[in-house]
Amino acid sequence: MAARKSRASARAAPADPPPAGALKLDGLLGLVGYNIRRADIFMHQQFARTVSRHAIRPADYAVMTLIGASARATQADIAAALSIKRPNLVGLVLRLEHRGLLAREVSQRDRRNHVLSLTPQGRRLLAKVRRVVRDQDRRVTQCWTDAERGRLIALLQRLYAPGNGRVRQA
Amino acid sequence: MAARKSRASARAAPADPPPAGALKLDGLLGLVGYNIRRADIFMHQQFARTVSRHAIRPADYAVMTLIGASARATQADIAAALSIKRPNLVGLVLRLEHRGLLAREVSQRDRRNHVLSLTPQGRRLLAKVRRVVRDQDRRVTQCWTDAERGRLIALLQRLYAPGNGRVRQA
Repeated sequence: MAARKSRASARAAPADPPPAGALKLDGLLGLVGYNIRRADIFMHQQFARTVSRHAIRPADYAVMTLIGASARATQADIAAALSIKRPNLVGLVLRLEHRGLLAREVSQRDRRNHVLSLTPQGRRLLAKVRRVVRDQDRRVTQCWTDAERGRLIALLQRLYAPGNGRVRQA
Repeated sequence: MAARKSRASARAAPADPPPAGALKLDGLLGLVGYNIRRADIFMHQQFARTVSRHAIRPADYAVMTLIGASARATQADIAAALSIKRPNLVGLVLRLEHRGLLAREVSQRDRRNHVLSLTPQGRRLLAKVRRVVRDQDRRVTQCWTDAERGRLIALLQRLYAPGNGRVRQA
């Protein structure tokens, strides 16, 4: 209890989790997968903090950005481009449609598929949120130089590029 | 229908998703958050492919590794160290306990909390899976040099370090 009054603990007191160093993370810190997961959780928390007042999640933002930039994109196109499973995309699309942010129409070429477009309301919201998203993506990565930021993005894109990691049949 | 018979569409037919370039990703590719998300999905798929036969998911692996390395770790310690929400950890811990991989006992210091330990069976499975996880983490990141791998890990750790991204009160 006495410690609560010291200056150091007063500074550390707010909602912060205790330092991770308390447990031995050695077996995990050398894994790329672990570090990417932690970074993803962090970016998700930051996104939620700044964009939550618009009720837009990262996947909503990605889907709306793609639809806004692509004339006549279908749900299948969007799922493939974002590497989202199609059933998972369906719920997201229905929610955005229900909020009046996007419109669906049955594809002329494949009647099991839907062509998606943003409504005027969807376009307005996307324009507003886009500025917030870009600003916060820059802000939270100020721990890096511009060169480091560019290098990290290039390395990640090489990692998830189609064909990487495939086990070759010997 | 005629298009189905053309050579181009025959080539594009197999299970692979169509190239992401088909839709305009420009608005997303410059965002660190988007690239980390894609990399996380990719690493998760690779992990599932190699480790799924042991019915171990990335979060299970992280939790078991921490418990294995830390005497008398509590659920609260684990949740904080991995930045997992405590309610989410509870289900995971119960599943591992049900499979006989870990044991829980009520903490002496805080009776609302549980101390966790691996059972002998949990230790054996972790030892086996650890080799698989490390091998596949190395294998899928062979698109990078060792120096690039090290740099990426260091940059990610700087990103999710406690205190980064906090908005300063002006």
